[in-house]
Amino acid sequence: MDGADKVALVAALERVTEHWRPRIIGEVNGSKIQLAKFKGDFVWHSHDDSDDLFLVLHGRLAIDLPEKTIDLQPGELLIVPRGLQHRPRAVEEVHVLNIELKGTVNTGDADAAGELTAPERYL
Amino acid sequence: MDGADKVALVAALERVTEHWRPRIIGEVNGSKIQLAKFKGDFVWHSHDDSDDLFLVLHGRLAIDLPEKTIDLQPGELLIVPRGLQHRPRAVEEVHVLNIELKGTVNTGDADAAGELTAPERYL
Repeated sequence: MDGADKVALVAALERVTEHWRPRIIGEVNGSKIQLAKFKGDFVWHSHDDSDDLFLVLHGRLAIDLPEKTIDLQPGELLIVPRGLQHRPRAVEEVHVLNIELKGTVNTGDADAAGELTAPERYL
Repeated sequence: MDGADKVALVAALERVTEHWRPRIIGEVNGSKIQLAKFKGDFVWHSHDDSDDLFLVLHGRLAIDLPEKTIDLQPGELLIVPRGLQHRPRAVEEVHVLNIELKGTVNTGDADAAGELTAPERYL
């Protein structure tokens, strides 16, 4: 093989079974491309060293920022710049493509993230 | 504003009017997030310093690699690792989200890319 194989997002998402536990499907220039399912309220946090891209694939995602909330539908994306506090929220399950720098912890600087902090795992 | 605004991909694509001229909609960790419309055969090329992600949003995209061709439908993505020769191809117009390192020239190392070489432009 050529070291390049496609990923079908819907089929890959069937193998993502835990909320708030993104799974890596590839890397681009040091950033990890992840698929995730969210439901409920995440923790407020920021990442000092990584921008954070959210592209909604299915469902609806709210991302609270310090001074506003962004509501995302399928086909809409938001880039949260590094250092900006944010909190993803989803009333119903939402499917998301997420990009962060490799090595970035999903809960960032949050003090009391507890079990929301997920290990980096490939799908 | 918080320096973070969402992008609706379908609406943004309406403003991408030229084939093979990607338009930047944001940056993540030094890479540019681009929207593009392709039709016809691009030129064989590689990028020594940048991986190259293609996510098909509408239509069908073939990406020729040295030893195989990858056919992508909507919701399928391919990451072409840096240094690997590739040639995007589309019989009918295809809409693509593309990620490359900022500063990467779309035609890479191709000697005779001519007018296929596009300037970096924000949407």
